[in-house]
Amino acid sequence: MHWRAITRLFGILMMLYSLSFLPSVGIAILYDDGQAIIFGLSLLITFVGGLFLWFPNIRQRAELSVRDGFLVVTLFWAILGMVGALPFILGLHLSITDAVFESISGFTTTGATVIAGLDQLPPSILYHRQQIQWLGGMGVIVLAVAILPLLGVGGMQLYRAEASGVAKQEKITPRIAETARALWIIYLVLTLACAIAYWIAGMNLFDAVGHAFTTVATGGFSTHDASIAHFNSIAIEIIAIVFMLAGGVNFAIHFVAWRRMTLRPYVNDPEVRSYGYIFMLGLLIITLSLYLAGEYTGASSSLRYAAFQVTSILTSTGFTTADFSLWPLHIPLVLVILSFTGSCAGSTAGGIKIIRIILLAKLGLRQLFQLAHPQAISVVKLGGKAISEEVLYSVWGFYVLYIVTALLLTVAMMAAGLDLESAFGAVVATINLLGPGLGDVASNFSGVNAVIKWLGVFGMLVGRLEVFTLLILFLPAYWRH
Amino acid sequence: MHWRAITRLFGILMMLYSLSFLPSVGIAILYDDGQAIIFGLSLLITFVGGLFLWFPNIRQRAELSVRDGFLVVTLFWAILGMVGALPFILGLHLSITDAVFESISGFTTTGATVIAGLDQLPPSILYHRQQIQWLGGMGVIVLAVAILPLLGVGGMQLYRAEASGVAKQEKITPRIAETARALWIIYLVLTLACAIAYWIAGMNLFDAVGHAFTTVATGGFSTHDASIAHFNSIAIEIIAIVFMLAGGVNFAIHFVAWRRMTLRPYVNDPEVRSYGYIFMLGLLIITLSLYLAGEYTGASSSLRYAAFQVTSILTSTGFTTADFSLWPLHIPLVLVILSFTGSCAGSTAGGIKIIRIILLAKLGLRQLFQLAHPQAISVVKLGGKAISEEVLYSVWGFYVLYIVTALLLTVAMMAAGLDLESAFGAVVATINLLGPGLGDVASNFSGVNAVIKWLGVFGMLVGRLEVFTLLILFLPAYWRH
Ligand SMILES: [K+]
Ligand SMILES: [K+]
Repeated sequence: MHWRAITRLFGILMMLYSLSFLPSVGIAILYDDGQAIIFGLSLLITFVGGLFLWFPNIRQRAELSVRDGFLVVTLFWAILGMVGALPFILGLHLSITDAVFESISGFTTTGATVIAGLDQLPPSILYHRQQIQWLGGMGVIVLAVAILPLLGVGGMQLYRAEASGVAKQEKITPRIAETARALWIIYLVLTLACAIAYWIAGMNLFDAVGHAFTTVATGGFSTHDASIAHFNSIAIEIIAIVFMLAGGVNFAIHFVAWRRMTLRPYVNDPEVRSYGYIFMLGLLIITLSLYLAGEYTGASSSLRYAAFQVTSILTSTGFTTADFSLWPLHIPLVLVILSFTGSCAGSTAGGIKIIRIILLAKLGLRQLFQLAHPQAISVVKLGGKAISEEVLYSVWGFYVLYIVTALLLTVAMMAAGLDLESAFGAVVATINLLGPGLGDVASNFSGVNAVIKWLGVFGMLVGRLEVFTLLILFLPAYWRH
Repeated sequence: MHWRAITRLFGILMMLYSLSFLPSVGIAILYDDGQAIIFGLSLLITFVGGLFLWFPNIRQRAELSVRDGFLVVTLFWAILGMVGALPFILGLHLSITDAVFESISGFTTTGATVIAGLDQLPPSILYHRQQIQWLGGMGVIVLAVAILPLLGVGGMQLYRAEASGVAKQEKITPRIAETARALWIIYLVLTLACAIAYWIAGMNLFDAVGHAFTTVATGGFSTHDASIAHFNSIAIEIIAIVFMLAGGVNFAIHFVAWRRMTLRPYVNDPEVRSYGYIFMLGLLIITLSLYLAGEYTGASSSLRYAAFQVTSILTSTGFTTADFSLWPLHIPLVLVILSFTGSCAGSTAGGIKIIRIILLAKLGLRQLFQLAHPQAISVVKLGGKAISEEVLYSVWGFYVLYIVTALLLTVAMMAAGLDLESAFGAVVATINLLGPGLGDVASNFSGVNAVIKWLGVFGMLVGRLEVFTLLILFLPAYWRH
């Protein structure tokens, strides 16, 4: 482990990150909401903290290895989580638990909140929350598309066969920078387009930018307690649906489409195609169920609420236009299943991810088929290409660890006092990076105890870091040479 | 498909099975409970029905193929389910739904019941229920140890590598008969020992035999609404624990231990060892949790109730000495997880089975380990032997189909009107062959609607037939040549 080089890296990161408090300072001055000093202080603390980490290690320029990568990625989210919590502690006087929960929920693009009464918050703090999610989304795209494949983790390795093999011994820095720039441009363009669309549709500029931040990041933080329902506008809901769906697409596909100036890559990619099918199927089931259960008057209302909630949950955004946890019969559970399914690998979304679901389903069916026809040889293919054993095992391992973690977290949440439905809801809300849950945590986490909040923080980190990256740190073998 | 040979087989089966009504006729006469005519009628209907299936096909002696096997095994449980329902319809005037549910619940050794008020039933009907489970358990042992491995299905194939390969083209009859006889002797001896022990511990002979039937079969039907709590006897609880645990052991291991007259096979088998560890771990967690939550006064009471319920649920028996669904905090969920874990392959128990859980866990850990040490080559081993790819994929396929079926069943149960906890409880109760559930189905299924009961019947059959055997019948490829 290159401890000092890692420390130097995080010193630089914190000094850079301290600049992110500047827009909040500006907004605090503009709205005169009394928080300018708070953000100035946060900036100063973060910058000086970074300086203290960086300066003693200024010459520690050792290239980081792949093994360092797991620790760096985990610490990245943990440290940003703490830094981003500063304004919540200093400005809102939240407890450390609440502030860290809120901040981690932001950076992981989960969007679960411990704050009830958003509409009364100072604008600069509201802006800070939205920006955290946007930056978190930015970090995640680079993590998912560029870094995790190099570590041999995450759904994206399926796209880049070379990553799991050759690259394991490579140094990881140069390739990342190049990929990151292209991805960020796309991310920025999507955000800009989304903000302008919201603005035209009737949001004020502050809300438009704030919600664009958390739509494209599939984060789900809102500046209003009522979330998107606050605006009660079909136009805004349609814009949100379009950009949430875009946020749930693999950014590597966006990248190719952007470069070649064509929509073909979306159609050709088997995961994006399945993403479309699953969306349609979910939409059909939920619309029909809402209509038949008579929850809303008329088919068009059922379609409206179903379309928004299915998109929001499939992409793990967590915006709401209705309290879906109170929808009748099987509807909440179907939505929970969609949340576990998730969107594409290489996006900002949470959940198991569609590419893994496809492979799991293909394997289940292949076993049945082979029993019926023992002589037939069937290879698991995706988009016409055979999938290697190594990748299949990796998907399996991911799935097992994901489900076991979710189960144990549910047990722990119940041990900490939640009932079954709430505990399950809290796990869905955090490990899938969804935000809203069921039962006691249907709309926010303000009413639950500190233990449950910390379990939630763990869940969000596990979900964001694709399980392996975090859990590997608990493996003694990781720390041995 | 050798349709006529299959029809002939089921004709013989029904004629043979009709004899199983004789003990009930005897008991009806002995207790003079007015049901003798009912059981006589059931006997007659079954025998004549069998005659009508058998006689026209008397010369159809074609050997059944492996592909026929899947259909035969599924029909075996379905047809016995219908035949066993006759006395419930004729004697208790239950609806067809209720009668079939009760009968299938018996034959699959699930033990969920639609009858509230057992203590008031005629003794002959009570005996019939207990005997159904005992015969179901008998059928299952042969199914799990001798038949399913030949079909390439079930955890036991892991023990007999040759079964999945060479044997696929073999004719299946001769090998089964020889194995079956040995297994049944063991089953009979265990039942006898259990009945004598219960009798000595204070049950009357009727209850002793009846409960021995359903203990060794890990079935869980009782002759009293209060189940084992009715007796309020520590001695009886200890006897039940011992014989439930024995029923959860692979009968192939019992067989080897019996032949060599030594206990070593139990110690040497990796699955039985893990079974022991999981039991101890579950016992420790539940005892501690009950004690710390103050549910019972004193550690010894906590241990007593924990030991019984952990055994009953891990072995999927479903006897109760307390309403565990009302135990505080995380305890019900931990028990539910134990129910999914299940006992050993080749036993009468339900659930995923420990051997599969071991392999799933090893695979999850191997993926983590390989990320930490990409150069290391690690093969999944069990008891010192490397496990083949084919077996690993089969375990994976099983697990995926099991979980997906459980999820879809939960959705369907909610669509039919159950709340989340009850629906989940109903699925656990049926697919894991447990019996008691959570919420509305915590003690019995008498209060739910017909749709839910039929979904329960499907769940029990899926669980009993190790998923593959039933689901393969829905695959178009199975019906093509
Ligand atoms: K989210
Ligand atoms: K049972």
